[in-house]
Amino acid sequence: MRIAVIGAPCETMKPKRLWDKGYDVNQTVHRFTVGDDHVLDLEMVEADCLGSVAHAMTLAKAGILSQRDVQRLRKELAAIAADGRAGRFKISLDQEDVHTAIENRLTTKLGDIGKRIHTARSRNDQVIVNTRLWARRRLIDLGEAILQLTGTLAKFANRHKLVPMVGRTHMQRAMPSSVGLWAGAWLEALLDDFELVKTAYALNDQCPLGSAASYGVPVPIDRAYTARLLGFAKAQNNVLYANNSRGKIESIILAACAQIAADLSRVSQDLIVFSMPEFGYFTIPDELTSGSSIMPQKKNPCGLELTRAKTRSIIACHDEVIGIYTALPSGYNRDFQQTKGAAIRGVNLTIDCVRVMNVTFSKLKVNKDRLKAGFAGEVFAVDRALQLVAAGMPFRDAYRKVAAELDQLDTLDPVQAIKDRKGQGMAGNLRLDIDRKRIAAGRATVRRWRSGAAKVLQSLLHS
Amino acid sequence: MRIAVIGAPCETMKPKRLWDKGYDVNQTVHRFTVGDDHVLDLEMVEADCLGSVAHAMTLAKAGILSQRDVQRLRKELAAIAADGRAGRFKISLDQEDVHTAIENRLTTKLGDIGKRIHTARSRNDQVIVNTRLWARRRLIDLGEAILQLTGTLAKFANRHKLVPMVGRTHMQRAMPSSVGLWAGAWLEALLDDFELVKTAYALNDQCPLGSAASYGVPVPIDRAYTARLLGFAKAQNNVLYANNSRGKIESIILAACAQIAADLSRVSQDLIVFSMPEFGYFTIPDELTSGSSIMPQKKNPCGLELTRAKTRSIIACHDEVIGIYTALPSGYNRDFQQTKGAAIRGVNLTIDCVRVMNVTFSKLKVNKDRLKAGFAGEVFAVDRALQLVAAGMPFRDAYRKVAAELDQLDTLDPVQAIKDRKGQGMAGNLRLDIDRKRIAAGRATVRRWRSGAAKVLQSLLHS
Amino acid sequence: MRIAVIGAPCETMKPKRLWDKGYDVNQTVHRFTVGDDHVLDLEMVEADCLGSVAHAMTLAKAGILSQRDVQRLRKELAAIAADGRAGRFKISLDQEDVHTAIENRLTTKLGDIGKRIHTARSRNDQVIVNTRLWARRRLIDLGEAILQLTGTLAKFANRHKLVPMVGRTHMQRAMPSSVGLWAGAWLEALLDDFELVKTAYALNDQCPLGSAASYGVPVPIDRAYTARLLGFAKAQNNVLYANNSRGKIESIILAACAQIAADLSRVSQDLIVFSMPEFGYFTIPDELTSGSSIMPQKKNPCGLELTRAKTRSIIACHDEVIGIYTALPSGYNRDFQQTKGAAIRGVNLTIDCVRVMNVTFSKLKVNKDRLKAGFAGEVFAVDRALQLVAAGMPFRDAYRKVAAELDQLDTLDPVQAIKDRKGQGMAGNLRLDIDRKRIAAGRATVRRWRSGAAKVLQSLLHS
Amino acid sequence: MRIAVIGAPCETMKPKRLWDKGYDVNQTVHRFTVGDDHVLDLEMVEADCLGSVAHAMTLAKAGILSQRDVQRLRKELAAIAADGRAGRFKISLDQEDVHTAIENRLTTKLGDIGKRIHTARSRNDQVIVNTRLWARRRLIDLGEAILQLTGTLAKFANRHKLVPMVGRTHMQRAMPSSVGLWAGAWLEALLDDFELVKTAYALNDQCPLGSAASYGVPVPIDRAYTARLLGFAKAQNNVLYANNSRGKIESIILAACAQIAADLSRVSQDLIVFSMPEFGYFTIPDELTSGSSIMPQKKNPCGLELTRAKTRSIIACHDEVIGIYTALPSGYNRDFQQTKGAAIRGVNLTIDCVRVMNVTFSKLKVNKDRLKAGFAGEVFAVDRALQLVAAGMPFRDAYRKVAAELDQLDTLDPVQAIKDRKGQGMAGNLRLDIDRKRIAAGRATVRRWRSGAAKVLQSLLHS
Repeated sequence: MRIAVIGAPCETMKPKRLWDKGYDVNQTVHRFTVGDDHVLDLEMVEADCLGSVAHAMTLAKAGILSQRDVQRLRKELAAIAADGRAGRFKISLDQEDVHTAIENRLTTKLGDIGKRIHTARSRNDQVIVNTRLWARRRLIDLGEAILQLTGTLAKFANRHKLVPMVGRTHMQRAMPSSVGLWAGAWLEALLDDFELVKTAYALNDQCPLGSAASYGVPVPIDRAYTARLLGFAKAQNNVLYANNSRGKIESIILAACAQIAADLSRVSQDLIVFSMPEFGYFTIPDELTSGSSIMPQKKNPCGLELTRAKTRSIIACHDEVIGIYTALPSGYNRDFQQTKGAAIRGVNLTIDCVRVMNVTFSKLKVNKDRLKAGFAGEVFAVDRALQLVAAGMPFRDAYRKVAAELDQLDTLDPVQAIKDRKGQGMAGNLRLDIDRKRIAAGRATVRRWRSGAAKVLQSLLHS
Repeated sequence: MRIAVIGAPCETMKPKRLWDKGYDVNQTVHRFTVGDDHVLDLEMVEADCLGSVAHAMTLAKAGILSQRDVQRLRKELAAIAADGRAGRFKISLDQEDVHTAIENRLTTKLGDIGKRIHTARSRNDQVIVNTRLWARRRLIDLGEAILQLTGTLAKFANRHKLVPMVGRTHMQRAMPSSVGLWAGAWLEALLDDFELVKTAYALNDQCPLGSAASYGVPVPIDRAYTARLLGFAKAQNNVLYANNSRGKIESIILAACAQIAADLSRVSQDLIVFSMPEFGYFTIPDELTSGSSIMPQKKNPCGLELTRAKTRSIIACHDEVIGIYTALPSGYNRDFQQTKGAAIRGVNLTIDCVRVMNVTFSKLKVNKDRLKAGFAGEVFAVDRALQLVAAGMPFRDAYRKVAAELDQLDTLDPVQAIKDRKGQGMAGNLRLDIDRKRIAAGRATVRRWRSGAAKVLQSLLHS
Repeated sequence: MRIAVIGAPCETMKPKRLWDKGYDVNQTVHRFTVGDDHVLDLEMVEADCLGSVAHAMTLAKAGILSQRDVQRLRKELAAIAADGRAGRFKISLDQEDVHTAIENRLTTKLGDIGKRIHTARSRNDQVIVNTRLWARRRLIDLGEAILQLTGTLAKFANRHKLVPMVGRTHMQRAMPSSVGLWAGAWLEALLDDFELVKTAYALNDQCPLGSAASYGVPVPIDRAYTARLLGFAKAQNNVLYANNSRGKIESIILAACAQIAADLSRVSQDLIVFSMPEFGYFTIPDELTSGSSIMPQKKNPCGLELTRAKTRSIIACHDEVIGIYTALPSGYNRDFQQTKGAAIRGVNLTIDCVRVMNVTFSKLKVNKDRLKAGFAGEVFAVDRALQLVAAGMPFRDAYRKVAAELDQLDTLDPVQAIKDRKGQGMAGNLRLDIDRKRIAAGRATVRRWRSGAAKVLQSLLHS
Repeated sequence: MRIAVIGAPCETMKPKRLWDKGYDVNQTVHRFTVGDDHVLDLEMVEADCLGSVAHAMTLAKAGILSQRDVQRLRKELAAIAADGRAGRFKISLDQEDVHTAIENRLTTKLGDIGKRIHTARSRNDQVIVNTRLWARRRLIDLGEAILQLTGTLAKFANRHKLVPMVGRTHMQRAMPSSVGLWAGAWLEALLDDFELVKTAYALNDQCPLGSAASYGVPVPIDRAYTARLLGFAKAQNNVLYANNSRGKIESIILAACAQIAADLSRVSQDLIVFSMPEFGYFTIPDELTSGSSIMPQKKNPCGLELTRAKTRSIIACHDEVIGIYTALPSGYNRDFQQTKGAAIRGVNLTIDCVRVMNVTFSKLKVNKDRLKAGFAGEVFAVDRALQLVAAGMPFRDAYRKVAAELDQLDTLDPVQAIKDRKGQGMAGNLRLDIDRKRIAAGRATVRRWRSGAAKVLQSLLHS
């Protein structure tokens, strides 16, 4: 389980002399500067090991380490990564962060070789590359989750493409529509979101390593080589930009997350309303409802409500990160440290929301009778006006005529009304084939990402 | 130490068949709905015990529990609170939250009495009252911290009231000023912020208990009695509002925190710039600086940079909470759960920032020579123009004359220039007496708050 | 009508040689720095005249102007203010802002006297005092609007206090409740909001004038006298804080606005849902609905939807202002200029939302039959459980028993169920008397504010 | 000039009977619902004409209009567009928006043909397509402005590639660096931003027309044909998504704007600090500075300060739009109207900021002597440690040795130190060739966009 320090110690409320400090100054300051790093960094153990192997190989290429040094470092770093995966690697508050903890262990185990690993590198360097490696992994998970959900939505939309559902505007009954059109709308929103994920992935796919403390070093390291070792598309060119872009890349990722979450929040909102007993269009799967401690009858759509709420948290994570780095001068500033928690929290919450929505649509029950019962005569007002148009009346006149005779509107057959909407992307012609092609292309992309990342892991830590 | 779950499990990057779920559905959903409650609620153990004692006494007054039941409940709840303070009280992921964990323990230990405690109460009820009790405690800590810092600032301003410092606008040299005026400005900003804390305290000081799941119960409970027991100024009247205001009160508190943090961020920014070697006006205390892993010469103002960054986090906590509850219909919604983490995080961060700033100003070194060296002739341009005004020239003409002769400006004595600014609140007449009176009044307020809270604790859990 | 420039010129899309600048550099830069000031400042004409009269009187007290000068200035400034009210006062883009436009006119009309008015004053000084005077006026309007709406809500709640309405949690049917309880909840939210308005008013009620460009001047001006003339409770003491607090006071006001708007957004959301044909609990007044250009049958709750949307705009105005000033070093910075538009926009939108909601509740139709039809047996589950408790069963056992027999629940009389909820603030005992007292006290406060402001206007510009 | 209503009327402060409404109800409600549309829509005249021509041609293809009808409509719409460009087209508050104003004029001029144009279309439809066409035009302007600025930066970086500048971390002196590296960092940030603009452009490049009021119509319109006519890459498939994505596309564009603005804000911040007299590294061009009304000596970096401030406004525009649409159920809701102002404001501000920064770097003066004077011995600490490493000492030991002997550090030649940093993207090897290639590719993209848009304009309105 991933955990994070959330702040101040919990002083008891017992009376004390006022204006005593009431807290330990040194502990306050130390905790303030370390923040949550020693906990958050547990997500970063493997990444830090990967980066260190690549850096060691780069130093060897520059003649600073021997091949034998590199072999010993790789072996120990592989062991550390294994400990990390098994939950056995610890970072103490004293060590502050994963970088110090690993350098200490290397020095303890390997002596001088450990002391050499930090040549031509700074902790900033390490944090940035770790963040990129972490983000790569999570963007793959996120992309995969989105494409799984869009797959589920495509099946759902297809299965219910002729199930009528009143189309609403202003939440008022407006026109004939279908469950398929409704689900297809969210499906395409998520496919557009996947384009944002791809752009975020591409911008993240630049290797910052070798930037040192923002200004490079007078050591002939081959940054393109490091980038290739770690499976990045390229080295991030300007070394100062490599540092300046901390927080920037994360907030670009979080902006994509915010869009995804916003869509899920809106579909949640729709489902919450349309599963109220007054509608009964949908029945939320039991796994995603919960009871009340006081009202024995309740089955509450908690999963959906939490998606709505977590969306605002994800948006806040974006605002936090962009808020922090916008204020900064160029070069490394300690403020960057504070971006890490929000980035991890925001991305993790988003992936969870997407997966929970996939569970929802995998099991969502559609209640055709209740959906059909929602149709009233007024829903067909436009259809009637357009019949008059077809007979030659100008639309604005037809509109006025129908408006004057609303109470005489006939109820038409909703299924037929759906079928009559034959333009591209309308209820009678959903064109899910277009979406399916986009899903397939997306899956191929994510598969390529994942296999690339796996190869790096294999070649640097498991060979 | 307080900890919080930050999200998704950390799948390893090993290759797997794509489109497997790749994660455990039930675990995902369960973790999604429970969120961080089982961890965050460790901050709430004492509050939940206090609320339960008061509720039990209210049920006794309504004839639903006997006095003997109440005595047994109080004894066990006092033991639980003691366990909580000692870090011995655990909440498992299965129990979900502190309320369930405590009700379970009461039922295990006291049988039917435990099963009766939840009469006429809902978990929402408990969460809201816990939040108010938690907020009361932290607002007292926050108020105390602010008044300690303002006390430190008042001493600092007084000590350096005749130390000249170039007054800047647009960061350019503008007019003669003093370290005292500069420090006094932040002092008064914080005294205004304390007014926000007082308003937040007053709005928080309403007892929601007895609202049940938002709509009350047909049981004759005396809510004013409950409110008195828990030391609240009054019962929050409308029971639906008691629930609707969840998140609202927290965001009002966080809006106050945001103002405090914004001031601290700005003073940090000033200190970071003015402690650069190019200025050298101030020397940051060693406790608040740290070194570099690569550059042996560095002493970085990390405490101040982190204050600047955490400010944006605190603002984001405010935005998160108000964002969540603004979207909600009336009555309890599960979304409220998601406000808890941001509220705790934001308030704790703020208190830490205030305390760290107090350490800063307690030890900040003022370098008079460097400050004096900052004065150049142009700083006295307005003084010169006003001399011409005193001799009868209209200001706008004097302004133009001085502008034309800038290079002939004499350098005046900065200390004298300060002393000449004698209007209220100017460098030569800081009127710190006004601030000291406000500090003293504030301290009396916080002392009253703290002693009231202590009495409640004493009478409900320790008597 | 108030208008504001919204940005860039609208180049036509005709083809042109790429990499031409494609825009006029000087115009771009000039518009960039002037921004919307020459338009926004039309809101500030009267305020600027008031401030100038008070400043002139202060200069006279300091011996810099004669009483005769002051009389001539007052007469001309009164004429300018009258022109402003009549929409006859213009600010050209060249003049940039109201201060320059007024100083120019004074100099044109009064010669040297006009050139003297700016002695010991800066434009910042003027902007700040104008903003405070503007804010005072709008906070009075806002307070008045809130108290008018709470009055309307109190009447509405009282009129419908025994009209049953299903109480919901998670938007699901939960317990018996009433229209009165629902309306009373919003009423009390707004009364709490009024406390925020009062605090904002108090913090705004400090006179910054005499701070000059942040650092005062070596001229013996009596700032307490200026403050009294302008009707402020006190001079804002530290002159640097007077400048630093620009944006801060505005964002405190906007934080209050955000709370008000959030409540109105939530009540709008409730009304939008409950006026859907599937519920029909309420009928929105015709003034606040509008039709569709294509669907002749539609009556859409546009006023409520726009309230919901404008709420997010108001929150964004808050974020904009606090975002801007948090980034700033102390002393005046040009960034402050950019806070003006958001402050005016946010406050004006809030007042509009409150007034529109007052229209809504003045005319909202309550449909008793539809409300009653919403009651189903399950709504009474807690009532049944509590009957078992009354007969001696522990609550947790009663809860389980009722849960097992949900389908056998009797439907009770909703009105009786309401009446049975007799605890303070429950549907059977709304205690609107408490609210009415708060409304009356609030009205007295606002009346005092308004009469104080009117006296200043009278004595400085109309006597 | 573009203008927007900013809110409430400006009541005078004269005393009145309290609890009078104090404002005109009908005017309040009307202004509330119309909002700024009749002003904002002046940006949309040409777009609305384009959309109407394409819709008319689509109706002709479906047999609903004759070719002759289409010709007459095109002629009149071309005339309206010309009036719009010339500032002669007016929208009255009564007409509410551009759509109504244009339909009215068509009906007045062309009779029944005008009444037929709205067949199979809704106002939502029109607003969405207008917004896409507006966004296309402004994204082209934005892309062009970015590429112009990056071109300027590339030249600037190249010209100053060997001008030494102390590299800073935590704003403290850290390592040798160059003006070229500093400028190159911002250059690459903006090139990454251009990728976001491209993604936003691609998502915007979907034609929503034919979605009617969200649910299509039973009329055989060929949406792919409409899309081609208007020069879109494709029709936005799902018609409900076409409506749901209102606000979404705008907020994706604004997220790109926020990133651009954040970079510009940071470079502004650097320039403000480094042009302070204490540094004097750079001299800001006169066009971008302004004076003080009270201090005759001031030259303030107003253009840069305003860029910093406007950045927060742009971020707020993003938050406003995403905040609004996240709250909405699917289908059209009136809330969408409120996204328009923020979208226009945010994009226009961003383009202005980019252009102003281009002016800045076109004329920025670099003061070599002052830059060189910033170098002190400690800046070379890492270089010294790495010399020891080159001689065989482990880095961690070298670090400790140098740290112990900081006061004995020799000052090296800064230019040589720069040249020694030869790794990719370091000061001695900026690799501006990589950036130049990206700029050229970007320019080709924007050129293609602009010529495509021009062709549509030509073929629909000018042929």
